[in-house]
Amino acid sequence: MPSAVSKRIVVVGGVAGGMAAATRARRLDENASITVFDKGPYTGFANCGIPYALDGVIPNDSSLILQTPEGFKNRFNIDVHVNAEVTKIDRAAKTVEVKATDEKESKQYPYDSLILSQGAEAFVPPVDGIQASNVFTLQTIPELQSVKNYIAANSCKSVAIIGGGFIGLEAAENLRLHGLDVSIIEYMPHVFPPVDSDIAEPIHSELRKNGIQLYLNARMQGIEAAPEGNGRASAIVLSDGIKVPFDLAIVAVGVRPRVSLAQEAGLQVDRNGVVINEFMQTSDPDIYAVGDMICTPHRITSRPMRVALAGPAARQGRLAADKIFGYATAASAYRGNIGTSACKVFDLTVGIAGLSVKVLEDMGLNPLWVTVHPPDHAGYYPTAHPITLKVAFEPGTGRLLGAQAIGLAGVDKRIDVLATAMQGNMTITDLTHLELAYAPPYGSAKDPVNMAGYVGSNVLADDVQVVHAAEINIQALAAKGTQIVDVRSPSEFSKGHLPNAVNIPVNNLRKAVEAGSLDQNKDVVVYCQVGYRGYLAYRILKHKGFNVVNLDGGYKAVSEGGYKALQANL
Amino acid sequence: MPSAVSKRIVVVGGVAGGMAAATRARRLDENASITVFDKGPYTGFANCGIPYALDGVIPNDSSLILQTPEGFKNRFNIDVHVNAEVTKIDRAAKTVEVKATDEKESKQYPYDSLILSQGAEAFVPPVDGIQASNVFTLQTIPELQSVKNYIAANSCKSVAIIGGGFIGLEAAENLRLHGLDVSIIEYMPHVFPPVDSDIAEPIHSELRKNGIQLYLNARMQGIEAAPEGNGRASAIVLSDGIKVPFDLAIVAVGVRPRVSLAQEAGLQVDRNGVVINEFMQTSDPDIYAVGDMICTPHRITSRPMRVALAGPAARQGRLAADKIFGYATAASAYRGNIGTSACKVFDLTVGIAGLSVKVLEDMGLNPLWVTVHPPDHAGYYPTAHPITLKVAFEPGTGRLLGAQAIGLAGVDKRIDVLATAMQGNMTITDLTHLELAYAPPYGSAKDPVNMAGYVGSNVLADDVQVVHAAEINIQALAAKGTQIVDVRSPSEFSKGHLPNAVNIPVNNLRKAVEAGSLDQNKDVVVYCQVGYRGYLAYRILKHKGFNVVNLDGGYKAVSEGGYKALQANL
Repeated sequence: MPSAVSKRIVVVGGVAGGMAAATRARRLDENASITVFDKGPYTGFANCGIPYALDGVIPNDSSLILQTPEGFKNRFNIDVHVNAEVTKIDRAAKTVEVKATDEKESKQYPYDSLILSQGAEAFVPPVDGIQASNVFTLQTIPELQSVKNYIAANSCKSVAIIGGGFIGLEAAENLRLHGLDVSIIEYMPHVFPPVDSDIAEPIHSELRKNGIQLYLNARMQGIEAAPEGNGRASAIVLSDGIKVPFDLAIVAVGVRPRVSLAQEAGLQVDRNGVVINEFMQTSDPDIYAVGDMICTPHRITSRPMRVALAGPAARQGRLAADKIFGYATAASAYRGNIGTSACKVFDLTVGIAGLSVKVLEDMGLNPLWVTVHPPDHAGYYPTAHPITLKVAFEPGTGRLLGAQAIGLAGVDKRIDVLATAMQGNMTITDLTHLELAYAPPYGSAKDPVNMAGYVGSNVLADDVQVVHAAEINIQALAAKGTQIVDVRSPSEFSKGHLPNAVNIPVNNLRKAVEAGSLDQNKDVVVYCQVGYRGYLAYRILKHKGFNVVNLDGGYKAVSEGGYKALQANL
Repeated sequence: MPSAVSKRIVVVGGVAGGMAAATRARRLDENASITVFDKGPYTGFANCGIPYALDGVIPNDSSLILQTPEGFKNRFNIDVHVNAEVTKIDRAAKTVEVKATDEKESKQYPYDSLILSQGAEAFVPPVDGIQASNVFTLQTIPELQSVKNYIAANSCKSVAIIGGGFIGLEAAENLRLHGLDVSIIEYMPHVFPPVDSDIAEPIHSELRKNGIQLYLNARMQGIEAAPEGNGRASAIVLSDGIKVPFDLAIVAVGVRPRVSLAQEAGLQVDRNGVVINEFMQTSDPDIYAVGDMICTPHRITSRPMRVALAGPAARQGRLAADKIFGYATAASAYRGNIGTSACKVFDLTVGIAGLSVKVLEDMGLNPLWVTVHPPDHAGYYPTAHPITLKVAFEPGTGRLLGAQAIGLAGVDKRIDVLATAMQGNMTITDLTHLELAYAPPYGSAKDPVNMAGYVGSNVLADDVQVVHAAEINIQALAAKGTQIVDVRSPSEFSKGHLPNAVNIPVNNLRKAVEAGSLDQNKDVVVYCQVGYRGYLAYRILKHKGFNVVNLDGGYKAVSEGGYKALQANL
């Protein structure tokens, strides 16, 4: 004889957070009744993989469907209803009203605990023409299939992607691999907005190298209808009048939490989503909300932060189930996020944990930061590639605030190490102590993370004063008579250097100073290619009594990301 | 006019630790006199890369030489003397006696601070025949060149490598790539001794797959002279009489700290090396020692630990310079090591941070541990490969004690993340909160590190009881009437299963229990392939009132590493 039902759990939304909650609930209580409703036709699918199914990287859409309603029933004894929208919550009666696509009448389902995991929906900017039949969003498997079918049926040759974030970049790469001409239209000055412009700059080169057309600082004013008058659109019109023609367009400009159901039920909602506590409880303690529809405190700033990622959603879903069944403890309370993420852009990987320098500065936190360019593994071992690693920390304490990286290899590893360090409340000085795995194929005796620690702790201790590329103003320096010293080799110097710079290779610097080549009464800016020789030169000049600063990240930082800022200062 | 000398620094040994100390000293003080002596012909070379120069992976030996005496002079104003052995320290006079190869007489050099970085020398076991001209060690560039020259000059076809640690494994791979027949002779039951036998087992398969002959538990009794009587040897003789023929042999059985100079000077030395404090000072505060010749407290056990790796050596050298020039603070005091390391073995990577379960148990620490086998990145994205990840932690607190991993990809990343977590004093439960970078090419919504955290925190909280492969004794279970339930699919079951197991796929388990297929009065061991379905089955049976345990790591743990232990128990 089956046991009596212990508790009735209803879950709204059957992707990451919802299914994590439902399966955890089952593991905690064999006798609970667990019911999941999803308004779409699929559940338990890998939405993060969708852009990779546009071309052959993931050859079969069905491999994105990790579990079916039947599978959930057989394995977990969970009742999953697809194509079933929850239209209302009656908190007094503790029921939800569900409208299934294939049924005329809505039905009521009772709950003891209700978990909302409705996610967020693609924001579609309200411009003329956006409703055209060949303008798509790309969040779900049906949307993926619509895009693929449309491309195939219409032999599409060009796509315009509105938005250069995660989904936009992944879609751009995969549609390019599919043979389409791809344009990206980005409202901000650079793609992948979580990072600083100097970190994003190499992405621009990589996209262009792969034949993708970039429109940055680009305001979409409208979408032009196709001349055939068939309900299709044919071009994006930008505010400066430029038209970007396309056969199809994909809108990927961000998401908005789905809060209307919660709102109509009288749950507390603010502009960041449904308001929850550290155990995912809404203002009604029997109703939980998890995933992209909520907002948790940022672990570094304590300010509200939305993270539309599967990992946090799954963690939150699990925690909701733990709370319902009495398994939650103080140690399991949600700790907030730091926004760790990585994105592949053709051969490059870009990643971030914590906050960018721009965001930190906009918040008034006045961070210190350093930029290093060490190889991903020992330089003498084949296929070593430089990583650009930028680490921000708090003045005084050295507490880590943000880490950004870009490169061909080893980027995700350093971001994960720094994310772990940040979550362990480590400082920039702690990074010098970190003992990381070193064999020539994997790292260096001083790992890039250690290098950032050494450079950063020198800055923290005021053993070196640095200037950042974006802060250099050549004209102002010239007006002050500041001497700019390029300490690289003559051949490096000849390939490009700062205006007004004199070339004194670091190995010659001591003699040059003794010979009086530099004026001790005037300030000095030194720089090399990546920062290390500049630091050596800094120390030599400092000992000799000069007032000197070193260019953080060296000429590489200028020629990659800092160039535009520098131009603005010229 | 050059400034007066501020301090005289003498460094003995010009590789990782010594050169880190010398260059840091220069950065801290432009007016110090800094002199380095090395008894060999090279300095500033990458000894970690030496095995990779045996074949074409590193095609040019000279790329291992990162800096020359001239380079050190020009860039750092450091005087480097090669082929110059320090033969005596006069602590009262504060001088060292130096014998240069090309000079008849020794010379005295005064110091204010002396830094010893003499490293460790290859241990050569005192067996008959070991002095033969074709038996080599492989620590330095001259030794590398001797080996390469010998192979070329004698058209060698076979090599015997005595010792299956770091250098032995790397030399084996590279000499195999060079076309030689390679045998590895290892005294212990498995190669790469820092890890447990179940983690090492896949290395054995990988070595054999690549045509390498393995002799495990193999005691070398002597080395047989070549019949030609030319001073060469031709075979290793093992204690069981087996002869392993070779054209040349490489001895890589470990190293011994070079302590005789320190010892003769009356500095405190114990069996682990020269004794130092947290600022690298020996019993004479003006003499420092760093690198492979010393021993620091293990960060987890506080017991003395030797780490013959370049990273810690460089960190220690830098710290010695900081102390000499007054830059050392409480925050910079040496924190000890956890022994983070990774090793490439053909296509596999094996790594460890902290201690193996065997070492922890031998120390009487009674660790808990879990084994998981998640893919290195999202399973639906191409080229995902399972990682075997074994994490040990303290009962009660959950404090992390050790992490071991092996797999084709993503191993070094997880080891570095876990090393960072360990150095941040995190617990197994903290791993469930870690927010790591997730995009399909790099990880999963639940990273392998999170997975280990979830499984481990369930064990810590007693939400699941596990049995490890090595603990299973089929005969004892049979005697007790314990039911062994394989919850995999029939096709998985048919490919191999535990003796006496019955096959009840997890999806059928609820019905089987209701139908009375299992005896509630008898204990149950459940298992699946990697542990997850077994855990689900555990929870179902536990709720139904069974006394049940789940096999940690599943059948994969048995078929890979646990098999031998299981056989021993049969």
